[in-house]
Formats: sequence, C-alpha cells, structure tokens
Amino acid sequence: MSQRWFLYHTSEDPFAFPVGPGALKLRLFVQSGQHLSCTVVHSDRYDSPGSEVPMPMERIGSAGAYDIHEAIIMTDTQRSRYLFHVGSPTGDYLWYGERGMSENREHAGTFQYAYIHRSLAMEVPTWSADAVAYQIYPSSFNQGTLQGISDKMPYLQELGVTAIYMTPVFESPSEHKYNTSDYYKVDPAFGDMSGLKELVRDAHQRGIKVILDAVFNHSGDTFFAFKDVLEQGEASPYKDWFFIHSYPVAQTSLLNYETFAKAEATMPKLNMDNPDAADYMIAVAKHWVREAGIDGWRLDVANEVNPSFWSRFRRELKSEYPELLLIGEIMHASGPWLRGDQFDGGMNYLLREAMLEFYAQQSTGPVRFMEQLLHLEALYNDQANQAMFQLIGSHDTLRFLTACKQGGRGWDRERTAEQRMKLAVFFQMTYIGIPMIYYGDEVGMEGATDPHCRKPMIWLEQEQNTVLHKWYKQLISLRMEHDVLRKGSFRPWFTDEARNVLGYVRNSGQERMGLIINNSPNSYQLELCRYRSDKNVLTDLLSGMTIRNSDRLIVEVEPFGCLMLH
Amino acid sequence: MSQRWFLYHTSEDPFAFPVGPGALKLRLFVQSGQHLSCTVVHSDRYDSPGSEVPMPMERIGSAGAYDIHEAIIMTDTQRSRYLFHVGSPTGDYLWYGERGMSENREHAGTFQYAYIHRSLAMEVPTWSADAVAYQIYPSSFNQGTLQGISDKMPYLQELGVTAIYMTPVFESPSEHKYNTSDYYKVDPAFGDMSGLKELVRDAHQRGIKVILDAVFNHSGDTFFAFKDVLEQGEASPYKDWFFIHSYPVAQTSLLNYETFAKAEATMPKLNMDNPDAADYMIAVAKHWVREAGIDGWRLDVANEVNPSFWSRFRRELKSEYPELLLIGEIMHASGPWLRGDQFDGGMNYLLREAMLEFYAQQSTGPVRFMEQLLHLEALYNDQANQAMFQLIGSHDTLRFLTACKQGGRGWDRERTAEQRMKLAVFFQMTYIGIPMIYYGDEVGMEGATDPHCRKPMIWLEQEQNTVLHKWYKQLISLRMEHDVLRKGSFRPWFTDEARNVLGYVRNSGQERMGLIINNSPNSYQLELCRYRSDKNVLTDLLSGMTIRNSDRLIVEVEPFGCLMLH
Repeated sequence: MSQRWFLYHTSEDPFAFPVGPGALKLRLFVQSGQHLSCTVVHSDRYDSPGSEVPMPMERIGSAGAYDIHEAIIMTDTQRSRYLFHVGSPTGDYLWYGERGMSENREHAGTFQYAYIHRSLAMEVPTWSADAVAYQIYPSSFNQGTLQGISDKMPYLQELGVTAIYMTPVFESPSEHKYNTSDYYKVDPAFGDMSGLKELVRDAHQRGIKVILDAVFNHSGDTFFAFKDVLEQGEASPYKDWFFIHSYPVAQTSLLNYETFAKAEATMPKLNMDNPDAADYMIAVAKHWVREAGIDGWRLDVANEVNPSFWSRFRRELKSEYPELLLIGEIMHASGPWLRGDQFDGGMNYLLREAMLEFYAQQSTGPVRFMEQLLHLEALYNDQANQAMFQLIGSHDTLRFLTACKQGGRGWDRERTAEQRMKLAVFFQMTYIGIPMIYYGDEVGMEGATDPHCRKPMIWLEQEQNTVLHKWYKQLISLRMEHDVLRKGSFRPWFTDEARNVLGYVRNSGQERMGLIINNSPNSYQLELCRYRSDKNVLTDLLSGMTIRNSDRLIVEVEPFGCLMLH
Repeated sequence: MSQRWFLYHTSEDPFAFPVGPGALKLRLFVQSGQHLSCTVVHSDRYDSPGSEVPMPMERIGSAGAYDIHEAIIMTDTQRSRYLFHVGSPTGDYLWYGERGMSENREHAGTFQYAYIHRSLAMEVPTWSADAVAYQIYPSSFNQGTLQGISDKMPYLQELGVTAIYMTPVFESPSEHKYNTSDYYKVDPAFGDMSGLKELVRDAHQRGIKVILDAVFNHSGDTFFAFKDVLEQGEASPYKDWFFIHSYPVAQTSLLNYETFAKAEATMPKLNMDNPDAADYMIAVAKHWVREAGIDGWRLDVANEVNPSFWSRFRRELKSEYPELLLIGEIMHASGPWLRGDQFDGGMNYLLREAMLEFYAQQSTGPVRFMEQLLHLEALYNDQANQAMFQLIGSHDTLRFLTACKQGGRGWDRERTAEQRMKLAVFFQMTYIGIPMIYYGDEVGMEGATDPHCRKPMIWLEQEQNTVLHKWYKQLISLRMEHDVLRKGSFRPWFTDEARNVLGYVRNSGQERMGLIINNSPNSYQLELCRYRSDKNVLTDLLSGMTIRNSDRLIVEVEPFGCLMLH
C-alpha cells in the first residue's frame, strides 16, 4: 500500500458534536503535507447501504502534523451514519470508518452517531457570545473594597467591557482569599453583602455582568469544618469532607492530610465525593446567585475536583439559572471538562502561551502560531470555544507588557514592546471566544509573576499608558460594532514566515473581515487582488483608510502594524 | 522537517485511564511502518520541570495505519504530567505533548492527568472476569417457558457456562417480546415471577449468573402509558413519556410519533429525558434485581437512549448492587458508553464482523484480522474490554456455521465450514472479554438471519453436532482451568499472510500461553526455537502432545488446526 496516511476521527466530542437541531459537526484530522481532499458520505442509520450522500469537507488549515477538515451534516431523524473518503492528487484514496482505514469501503465500516438527543447540543449562556471580560483582583483595584470597585464602574463602562470577573471576595485571612474561612460571608475588608448587591445592581444597569470566583477544591484551614476536624479529630462529623491520613491532624512539619498543591497547610483539600460536602458547596453557589444576583462562577483548581461533582453542579445550577456562566480554571488542555456536562468555558492559558511565544518572546513565527491556534480550537467543540476566557495574563502570570520587554528579537526589544503588546491585543479582540483583560494591562501596568502582577491599579492619568488605553477602547468598540468579530468563524488566510506576517479571516455569512498582523520591524506590502476583488472598496477600520479596487491593489502594513479590512 | 510522523493521544479514556490506585495507563497511536520507539517522560504535576522520569513504552502491535504503544505510570500524588518522546532508527525524533508534536520539547508542552480520583478507575463486577455467557431466546430454547429453561440447567452446567443472558421475558404480544406491555410482569406464556425466582435460584446453586434484557428505548404500543396517550391524547399525563408530533395520535399510514427504527408503530420511542419516565424505568430495573435476584441487565438499543439517563441508571443501580453487570446493546463502536459512567461492557458486534471475515468468509487474512483485534481493543479501556460480550452470533444475525458454509475459499467450503467454525470458537475461548455462546451454536444449529436464527433448540442427540459440542466443552473447560486465558493480556505473536496462519500470546505474569491458528487447508510447520527456548517442555493442551526442547524445535499445525501451547 502506498497510501499509509494517518487520519483520526471518533464519533465523540470534539470530533463529532451537535451544533443545533439535527445538525452534527464533524472534524477529521488528516496527515498534513499530502494535499488530501476529504469527503464525508452520510445517511440515516436505518437507510439501506448505498443511500449515502457525499458532501465535500472544508479544509480549515494545518495544526502542524495534521490538517483539520470539517463539515456539518444534517439529519431529520437524529440518527447518522457516515464514513470519510480521502483522496490524493495522484488518485490514491482511502475510506475511513469505525473499523479503520482501507481502500476497501466495506472494510472501513461506517461511523455512527447513534441519536442526537435535544440535550446533547451543548448550550452556553446566550450573552457570552457578546462578552468582553475584565478581571479584577479586589485587594488591588481601588481602595481594596467592593465600594472602590463600584466607584470605578463608569471607568469600566467607558473602557467598553461587558463582564467583570473578580477573584475571591469571601472571608479569608489572606490577601488573595483563595483559602476561604466563610463561604457565606463577604470579607469585611472588602465590604458586606449589601455592598456586593449594590455592585451587581450598578453593573447590571450599565450592561455589565458579574462573575465571582469559588474555591471548591480546597478550603482554608480556618473554615469551620476543618477547624472542627482539627479540634475533634476522628469524632468530627466533617472528617470525610477532607482527606485525613491519620489522627490527630498535624499541621506541623509532615502534614497528614491532603492539601492544594504540595503541602499548603492552610489549604486542606476538600473531598467533593462526600455528599455532605458536595451539598454544602452547591448550596453556597446557589446562595450567591440567588441573593446577590451574580451572572457566573469561575471555579478555582477545577481540574483537581472530581468531574462527577461538576456534572451535578452544572445540572443543579443550570436547571435554575440557565444563563449562568460557568468557567473552570484549568491551566492545560481542558477537553474533559468542556464536553457539555461540566463547564461552559475555561481559562485559556494555552492560548496565552502561544501569544506569548509569538508576540512577546518572538520565539516562534506565524506558521507555528497559526498551527497552535488551530490545534487549540480543535481541542473543543464550537460552543466551548465561544465561551473560553481568552487571556494574555492573570493574577497568576507575569504581565504581558513585561514579557514583551523581556522578550522579542533585536536590540530594541524595549522600544518595540508596546507595539507588540498592541498586536497581541489586536489579535485578542479580533479572535473567537471571550477576550479577558487583566486589570491594569490596559494602562500599561508591568510586573513579574505573583506578587508583582498584583500591584495596585494605576489610576493617576499621568502614570497611565494612554496609547495602550486608547488602543483597548478602540478595539473593544470595533468588536462591539461588528458582529463578525464576535460570532464569525475564524479561518487562516496566509502566513509569510520570512517576513513574520500573518492574515486571517472572520466570516459570519453576512459579514467578512480580513485581519493582518505584521510582527516585524519592516513594513509589508500585500497584493490584495490575489485574495479578493469582488468589492470595489475596502476600508481599514483602524485608520479609516479606504482602498479602491484596481488591477494591482497593494496595501502596506507598517512595521509592527495591523489592518482590519472590511 | 523530515519527521512529519503522525501521533495521537489525549489525556482521556481510552488514551489515558486509571487501572488502580495511582496507576494510570497511557496509550499512544503512532504512525505505522516507521519502526519508531516510544518513551513516556513523567512526573508529579507540581514537581519542577526537569524532574521527569523516562520510561520505555511497550509496542503492542499494529492496528493498520497506526501502531499502539502502551505504558502504565505510577503516581503517589494522583497528579500526573507527562510527554512522549518518539524516535526513529535513523536518529530523528519528536516530542509530543498537549501543544502538539515538535522537535522542541518546550513547544510540545506536557499532557496533564489532573487528578486520579478514587472513583475515576472504572469498576466492573468482579465475577465478570471469569464468565462464559450463553444467550437464550426463551421462545425457542425449551418448551418456550422459564420452566423449560430451568429443566435444562444441568445441560448448561455440563457445557460449562457461568452466566445466561435471556432476551426479554416480560409481557408482550410478540414472540420476541421487544415491545413490552408490562415491565412488571413475566409473560404468562413463559411463566410467572415464582418461576423466574426458581430459575435464578437454581442457576445460582450451579454457579450460573442470570442476566435479563430490558428495553428502555421504546415500549410496546400496549404499554399502559402509551395506551393512555392513544385514548386521552394531549390530556394524558403520560404524553411526555413519548415523542408525539400531533394529536390525536395516529397509528395508521403516516405515524405522528417517534418509534424504534423507522415507523415501527408497535414500538413508540420512550422519552427518557422525562423525569417520570426515567423514574419509572429505574424502578423497574431495581424491582427485578431485588425481587428475582438477577445478576445483570442487557439494555436494548442502548445507543439511542440519552446517555444522561444511563449515567443516572448506573449511579442508582450500582450504589445498591455494585456486582450487577450492565451490558449495552450498541452494535457499533461503543466508546462513548464505556468510559465508566454508563455500561460495563457492550455486545461486541464489531469483533463478530472481524471473525466473520477471517474465519467464515475468509475474505481477509491474518494481518488484517490481527489489526482489527488491536483496533477494537484500543477503542476501550481495559476494564470495559474485560466485560465485553464477545459473540459470534445472536438473535439478530445469521448463524456463524451458516456463514462458514456460505463463505470460505475453495470448492470445498461446505466441507471445511465446521473446521473454520471450530477455529472461531477456539479463538473466542482464548481471547479477552466474556465469550458469549448463542444457544444452539454449540450443537451445530444453522440459519440465516431473523427469523431463521431463532429456530427451536435441537435437543435430539442424534441431530446434534457432537464434534462441535465436545469442542465447546473442551475449550470452556480449558478456559476455566487456566487463569491466563481469562485474565491474561493479549499480544500478537506472529502472522503468516501467505500461509494464512497467526499466533498470539496470553500472559498473566505467572502463566503464559501461545495460541496458533492455521486458517488454511495446508498443514503448517513452525520453528519454535525462534520464539522461545526457556522451558524444556511445551504441551499442546488440546491434544496433550508434548514437545521437548532441542536445537530445532518444530511443531506442526494441521490444516484448519490450532495449538494451545503451555
């Protein structure tokens, strides 16, 4: 056999997932570099063999070792049978079904998506598709209080964000408050329940949603249940809320109980397999939605809590509050948590890594950056991708501007840092998902990782970076004006590795936008007629510059510049 | 880049799954034909980079386009970080982590298995590992009654089976009884509750488990709830137990409600998203376990019922009856149902197809047969593979002996049919999972698909095929005597495509067995010293023949013969 290509598909999310009634999206990984074309051949599962309909698949692009091909097949009966036909330019071909790859169609078998139940299509809150989020570290934002945050609501509204996510505000002895003492109480240093209610009310009046942070992986050691175990030992009714190895519980030298990370004595790991502990935390989560009217939860260290708890958590919260946004803190590939039964989206640290490498460190070029984008998108279904928090930094990372100053090519990395940060923000605001701004990034705050990234917000205008601030406002505003930037599909357009330039397209059917990023110190000329000539006038929405169509339509992209062609 | 190999892994079942406390099994697909060697490099997730330990992976064999490599990594802390190193004989290599494949280790990133919760390791009933099952179609087995089945319990015990699975026995107007009228009543034609209890009691005394068949995808149209909808229409409290498109409900010409398959009027599809319908069926399932003491459920058309119902079904039944066996009828790749939250095993029709092609039709050779075995095994985790019903036929297929007579190479296919059937049974009884015998196959019953495969059991000894009957008894007995045949790992040994012969090894650590199958009309000589010489005497457990070790150790396998070397 000459055609020993490698393909991969399985009739499971994220390779097969419903995107609407009777609509099944299929994704196929195809060994790259072979110029293979793909067709999906499908029918109802109870139709006789031979009645299958062929449908060409769209090649989305390369994710490195494999290309991604996609198609949406429709079924009236909810029962789908399909197989793939993959062919090369030289006439070689393979069939691919649940029994594997073969030149023999029978041997390949067929994949089966048994039945598209109404509840199988993942649903995320409708508002999330339009959201731009802003992360606040309450101790450092304004006077370290909820009142301080409320006072800055006009600032946030003017910036243009539509959701704020605050790290924990519940009672805790630490500044970061990830070791909760009382899950039912706002930390007195921040304010109280009425202050939180007022903050939410004010935010809602300005069209801003509020997302809180809950820590259900571990509690603080001053949480009543753990204190009881410390005091009563084995007799405590709460002993099974934690993982205690022996009694009495020892907080000295060698811990004899499980904690967050490695031996963080003040953060005893919670046993969410324990029904009482699970009941307690679900009641906590409902309490704040019901009482304070919040719009979402971000769940800390979500990857180390039993997934079966999250399934129950989602079922119980979404049945009462279907528009509640649930974001899991999972710092790595998050597929298992984003299949529809747990979280709506995650904190996309992998995307941040790709942006860091390309814009800040410039250690990779546009080809790998584009491959990483497609690789990451293919980890999840469309709905989850739409609800991801797309971040360039957080309270757990060094700030992006600092990374730009430390990284980059050439002697003048300091000088170009702001320009490269602007490109990253341009990308973030023109990409899929929910862009998330870490407080202060928009005014040029700097700092290495924790604690340096958690410094007080800069409010003095003369200390703020007004170039960046204006840039953020302009881009958020453009994202809000153009549906396609929020809801359109993302497709690679071109990559120019030698010149360090890339282009991509957002497309919503009605609207189409071409985005170009020049990540180099040289200006770049692009001959556009090669790409499109169906409209007479193109406008760069950033500069307002119009480009009239002619035989040779050349646009220039400035050094470290970008274009938003409409 | 020269090394554009394609690899596939994801930190999810069946590519990563716990097999015991702190033990994580990893499976990696590697493009075949490249002679690549694989190493997994792993550490605790909170250990600093650089502390990873390398561990070679085992190449299990080729599944066609890809080879399967496996390793089990151990973790004390339940938190695992790992990446793969894949190298070629010429020195090319790739790293592979959650960010993809790269020559650059940093760029590959690391896979993360966040936390191995105690409940994440799938558990199947302990008794299933030792089971040999026998499927009974009650209408045709003996006098068409439960009493008739009870009367034949000594026959089943002598045959050696340890579990019987009966297709539905609940009240229904049809012979097959897949359109249930009353889920709480044994069909009067079969007997009553006391007869079922007696059957179970008798079976248990003989060490035989009893598995019933439940149909929760659809009911019969004489089920009280559907009758109520037919009578009361929209006013019926049961209308949401089904999918009714309009009222009044029409059973004529164009149906206006969903059914099993295409327009099976007597089988209205049940809406298991409806909490009342779900409650009702879970109560049914518990009722028969509690009252009749049965040991398992086989669930009909399980693939078309909402998976969220099965998750709840498993939770509720297993919490009360952890040793209850749950088998889903899924006639295609069953991964989504066998990840630990739904069924223990499935009806392995895909394995049957591979056996049909190789033994009955002889349309494929040993290479593809072996590839199919590995392909199928890699669809599931180890626990699910151990609980699969490995069948060569059922009430829904043509009988295997008939397939052998219709298929096969050469003019004498009729004459060799029995021999090839014997090879298939030999394979079935020396392979992993739960071998399942379809009633009558063991005495040479023949018949095309439904209804011909459902004919009355042959009880007259002079009409029974005694060669096959003895063969079944001998092989079941050998399987029971040798732990390794039930619990050992399965590994390819060799394939000789030209001579149509293959060998495989079962290995349990303490015990090791070599199995050879000659699927051709020619005798086959195998020089064993090439493969092993560490023991002085080998015994073929089928014939009792011993083979003494010497410089040239040659064993002969008869035409359509097989060896079980111990």
